[in-house]
Amino acid sequence: MYNHNQNQYLDELFDFLRIPSISAKAENKVDCREAANWLKKSLENVGIETVEIRETKGNPIVFGKHIIKDSYPTVLIYGHYDVQPPEPLELWTSPAFEPTIKNDKIYARGACDDKGQVYMHVKAIQEIINEGNLKCNLKLIIEGEEEIGSNNLELFVIENKELLKADVILISDTGLISNDCPSIDIGVRGLSYLEVEVTGPNRDLHSGLYGGAVPNPINILCEMIAKLHDGQNRITIPGFYSEVVELSSEQRSEIGKIPFDINVYKKALELADVSGEEGYSTIERTSIRPTLDVNGIWGGYTGEGAKTVIASKASAKISMRLVPNQDPAKITELFTNYFVSIAPTSVNVKVIPHHGGVPVVVSTDTIAYKAASKAFERCWNKTPIPVRSGGSIPIVALFKTVLGIDTLLMGFGLDEDAIHSPNESFGLFNFFKGIETIKAFYEEYSKLTLKN
Amino acid sequence: MYNHNQNQYLDELFDFLRIPSISAKAENKVDCREAANWLKKSLENVGIETVEIRETKGNPIVFGKHIIKDSYPTVLIYGHYDVQPPEPLELWTSPAFEPTIKNDKIYARGACDDKGQVYMHVKAIQEIINEGNLKCNLKLIIEGEEEIGSNNLELFVIENKELLKADVILISDTGLISNDCPSIDIGVRGLSYLEVEVTGPNRDLHSGLYGGAVPNPINILCEMIAKLHDGQNRITIPGFYSEVVELSSEQRSEIGKIPFDINVYKKALELADVSGEEGYSTIERTSIRPTLDVNGIWGGYTGEGAKTVIASKASAKISMRLVPNQDPAKITELFTNYFVSIAPTSVNVKVIPHHGGVPVVVSTDTIAYKAASKAFERCWNKTPIPVRSGGSIPIVALFKTVLGIDTLLMGFGLDEDAIHSPNESFGLFNFFKGIETIKAFYEEYSKLTLKN
Repeated sequence: MYNHNQNQYLDELFDFLRIPSISAKAENKVDCREAANWLKKSLENVGIETVEIRETKGNPIVFGKHIIKDSYPTVLIYGHYDVQPPEPLELWTSPAFEPTIKNDKIYARGACDDKGQVYMHVKAIQEIINEGNLKCNLKLIIEGEEEIGSNNLELFVIENKELLKADVILISDTGLISNDCPSIDIGVRGLSYLEVEVTGPNRDLHSGLYGGAVPNPINILCEMIAKLHDGQNRITIPGFYSEVVELSSEQRSEIGKIPFDINVYKKALELADVSGEEGYSTIERTSIRPTLDVNGIWGGYTGEGAKTVIASKASAKISMRLVPNQDPAKITELFTNYFVSIAPTSVNVKVIPHHGGVPVVVSTDTIAYKAASKAFERCWNKTPIPVRSGGSIPIVALFKTVLGIDTLLMGFGLDEDAIHSPNESFGLFNFFKGIETIKAFYEEYSKLTLKN
Repeated sequence: MYNHNQNQYLDELFDFLRIPSISAKAENKVDCREAANWLKKSLENVGIETVEIRETKGNPIVFGKHIIKDSYPTVLIYGHYDVQPPEPLELWTSPAFEPTIKNDKIYARGACDDKGQVYMHVKAIQEIINEGNLKCNLKLIIEGEEEIGSNNLELFVIENKELLKADVILISDTGLISNDCPSIDIGVRGLSYLEVEVTGPNRDLHSGLYGGAVPNPINILCEMIAKLHDGQNRITIPGFYSEVVELSSEQRSEIGKIPFDINVYKKALELADVSGEEGYSTIERTSIRPTLDVNGIWGGYTGEGAKTVIASKASAKISMRLVPNQDPAKITELFTNYFVSIAPTSVNVKVIPHHGGVPVVVSTDTIAYKAASKAFERCWNKTPIPVRSGGSIPIVALFKTVLGIDTLLMGFGLDEDAIHSPNESFGLFNFFKGIETIKAFYEEYSKLTLKN
């Protein structure tokens, strides 16, 4: 089905996917470095002039520079080579780090988020350089800590403003509505991610001898988590919604036009019902509204069989997705104050902030957006729909604030790709069509820029 | 400090404690059998006439019989050689299955619950036989599934009524108020232990793309658990308290006389405050009142760092301690119905019953109780206080129902022994004083019985 070149592309991508570059785990630090080195070599092979490994306090950044002519516009490509942890492993139908093709999709952790999408750029650049059609200067920063908050990239960006000068930032780390309905993201939500710990007695206790007379940290944590939403599924943290930009009814009716079938959605997830903030549609709940979700919880005995114990501690990981104009630092503070305030006096509560990200909405009235739209029209025969994504790419706000550069979010994933889940995948069609669309974007972008 | 014999006793007990006979784990099945075989040999060595390994569908039962004279009263000793899982391992200051003496205590899983207390009986029997003072017939059943519900013992008891005929059942699997204030348990609470599972979407999802629009099983499980108690810390399950026997104010004022220092209690557990059902004291909450506690909870990402995921499933282990006349089967049913009823329609809920036990209160007006009281007076120079224990020994109710025999709960543990917790211990004083008291009990019991 695919030609020699395409098979070659997949072989290379599979090598990249085999490296378990999980940034959340200390034991995979060495793999993160291996992924960075692999990518450096790969960018050198396709003809990028200068490629460097830039050290940080954490995982290194791969930086590339390819300047053809000063008068050409400069595109700064951002992506990440780190991946989410693959757990729970038992739910993968093929190993997370052994890429497998099934049903015309590549199955592997990172296939879509974001190694597969980064590698589309590598191959698009190779082709357009070889074809002699590149009329843009290129810069690349591919980092290794996106999945844990991009803290060290932040410093790198602040310290290298001159080096990173560009006209637009191009990121492929998002998705399309569907292959029948291509779309371009014009927003990402912000994020505040925290870990909480509730401590009761100083040791695990026998639930018969102590149960009912000492504070049970699991029960109490559950009660505290339950208090974070009201009966309308609104978040109860005082001040949480103060800065939220409410959309006009015109804007909301535009969102209502986005093709979306709630029955297909429920069926795909085998849900009897969706649930969320009252008064908003599913698309609104995942794009223009802030949310709070527990991402993990643990405490007490979780092994086989029964153990009659009162745990000393219970913990949870909690994240909030934010929308304009919520400030992650402010929201983290509001959460912390509220969470501590609702704890009974009998327990101790710790709140540990993990990482955050500022919400961003970008304009469709830019040369880059127009070029991307034309590129989609050429390659997909359809005008892409502008949509606001539910996910977070904290670095987008940083690029705007520190470098003053707008970002274009041209992602090629699909909902079914199950990023962050077991059996993450990326469609072969999307991978190859993405390469084609990125090349078309360069052509349209240089055309529109040089014309101005 | 201890004589040759005593050091010998400890060496033997340590061999017993080294066997990781964890009944909750399938991988330790072989260790449970080893513990049974070890105990059989040990009982044969001390001079018990007949000792047999009786097979069950699960771990074997060690059965012993020592009949001296038909006219003598028969004491049936019950105990268990299985132990609780040792987790969390990292909190043990010495390995759970490598017994260590520190501060005059034996540290090991099972030191107090119940291997150490079983072994007091072995040694008491040895001494009284050797001294020629035994005027009771003895029977012993030491089982290997007490920590997981004694299901197979139940069948054994039902099928062996004739074999198990006795005048009293003697169990050392409970504790004393303190070494300054010896006590005899006259009750154990019942138990209903369940596991619950809440399922939302059919796979783990990206919390940015789906958060706020799909049911999050962790948040929902927390809300459901929070609903199990009201603002007065009473359990909200309809009908839960219907059969609970309320004590008279005279009975409650007797309980109020039990020596108990709330400040010592809080300090030992490093608690700012105790908590529990309004209107009841700490001792009442752990003895005459039923309770509901979460013993374990898990769901989503619980590893290092951050993972922005909406879990497909969340689970918890929940147990309820019951008091007369609550029926565990009925309570399990009430819990299940209520728990399912409070689940939102967007999720699926499974409730899996683990095991149960019937609450029991025994009289102080029996020959056995009086003999035990006299034994304590002889060995401790104090009259023991009758108290109701918070723990559960389901088999006590079974012995009464099936065999028609009352149980005497003569336990020698202390609160500080941390049974079911890391660093379980058993005081050397308690171990040796226990042997002495058990021997005195046999003497007093045969004296009182033969006199009648």
